[in-house]
Amino acid sequence: MDGVKIIEIKKSVFAENEKDADELRKELKDKGVYLLNLMSSPGSGKTTTLIRTINLLKDRIRIAVMEADIDSDVDAIKIKEATGIQSIQLHTGGMCHLDAEMTRQGLDGLDLEDIDLVVLENVGNLVCPAEFDTGSVRNAMILSVPEGDDKPLKYPLMFSVCDVVVVNKIDVLPFFDFDIEKCREYIHMRNPKARVIPVCAKTGEGVDAFAEWILEEVSEWKTQ
Amino acid sequence: MDGVKIIEIKKSVFAENEKDADELRKELKDKGVYLLNLMSSPGSGKTTTLIRTINLLKDRIRIAVMEADIDSDVDAIKIKEATGIQSIQLHTGGMCHLDAEMTRQGLDGLDLEDIDLVVLENVGNLVCPAEFDTGSVRNAMILSVPEGDDKPLKYPLMFSVCDVVVVNKIDVLPFFDFDIEKCREYIHMRNPKARVIPVCAKTGEGVDAFAEWILEEVSEWKTQ
Repeated sequence: MDGVKIIEIKKSVFAENEKDADELRKELKDKGVYLLNLMSSPGSGKTTTLIRTINLLKDRIRIAVMEADIDSDVDAIKIKEATGIQSIQLHTGGMCHLDAEMTRQGLDGLDLEDIDLVVLENVGNLVCPAEFDTGSVRNAMILSVPEGDDKPLKYPLMFSVCDVVVVNKIDVLPFFDFDIEKCREYIHMRNPKARVIPVCAKTGEGVDAFAEWILEEVSEWKTQ
Repeated sequence: MDGVKIIEIKKSVFAENEKDADELRKELKDKGVYLLNLMSSPGSGKTTTLIRTINLLKDRIRIAVMEADIDSDVDAIKIKEATGIQSIQLHTGGMCHLDAEMTRQGLDGLDLEDIDLVVLENVGNLVCPAEFDTGSVRNAMILSVPEGDDKPLKYPLMFSVCDVVVVNKIDVLPFFDFDIEKCREYIHMRNPKARVIPVCAKTGEGVDAFAEWILEEVSEWKTQ
């Protein structure tokens, strides 16, 4: 069996999530662990993108992954099989997002000794996860071409809290009415500083730019 | 200007949503208005499917639409322009779902005189909307091919509360790793009675089967 550790996340008891998130960020800084929060809609290709990215990075930095899902463990197993890195599954028990305390419960299930980067794959949802600071250094999101270029207009908060937007499934651009320049413009309406990185996780095209962004981020943060 | 009425939805004050939903269902039954709750991920093609369906049905039953969105009014305008029917926009102000009381606030903004069917296009989200009874007679959802055939495994509650699953974007099946029989099997694990209807909203293929399902549903309910 390709078992992975499964953590059943309990509801948070902290009323003030922002304060708690700042505290978690400090704790992680002391340990030298960079936390990246990765968000998206269901089915945008988070796991495939992550596998490609990890395989580009795993010989350069030490990575662990937490896969949040309502009720399955397929993603954590996939990551473990495809990359060999430490990967655990967080079961949210129906909850639609993770906050800092829930993220901490997940981190407690990881061996953080010798880890530089933890990627949290948040619940597939463009609404609720945007409202809760997980304690991450940065937020990243994946928007896939079939979802449409108008998503930044419809889910404004998600796009305004993200530092980087990976536009996935660019291989199917010819089959969808998706204008990547218009999309870039809408993203910048929400967050003028957001990096936009077009990729095709299936073939790997463009994923190196996302991997480079992560690498620069982590090295810069380490020297701060 | 193609203005549509916009209703700013306020947070619900009712603690017991299920009781309130049953009450709303009774009120609507007395008025002869069938409410259908339509859910999906962001970008699955809810609005396009709805336009196709309404154009097949609007000469046979009298339809109105409520488009719930966090912050834009593009969908209600699209529906009004493409079908000519009564269409209003509900702004949820960041809220990730609608419950019965929020649905009632929307219905108050419609002229329900001579309306047989109201379709509520819920917020694009596979998690939270599944948890709240809106007072609808039935729940329908759209799953699009690019999202993947494994979604019923990952969002179990959504698929168990839906009476019909429309599988959209079947025109791009050759470009995605999506097994429609496997998907049907996963859907039936969650709800053995769910109808599965493959469509391509872009070309209209298969949408007549969804329209027929709605028509049968409404006529049956009218005679109960």
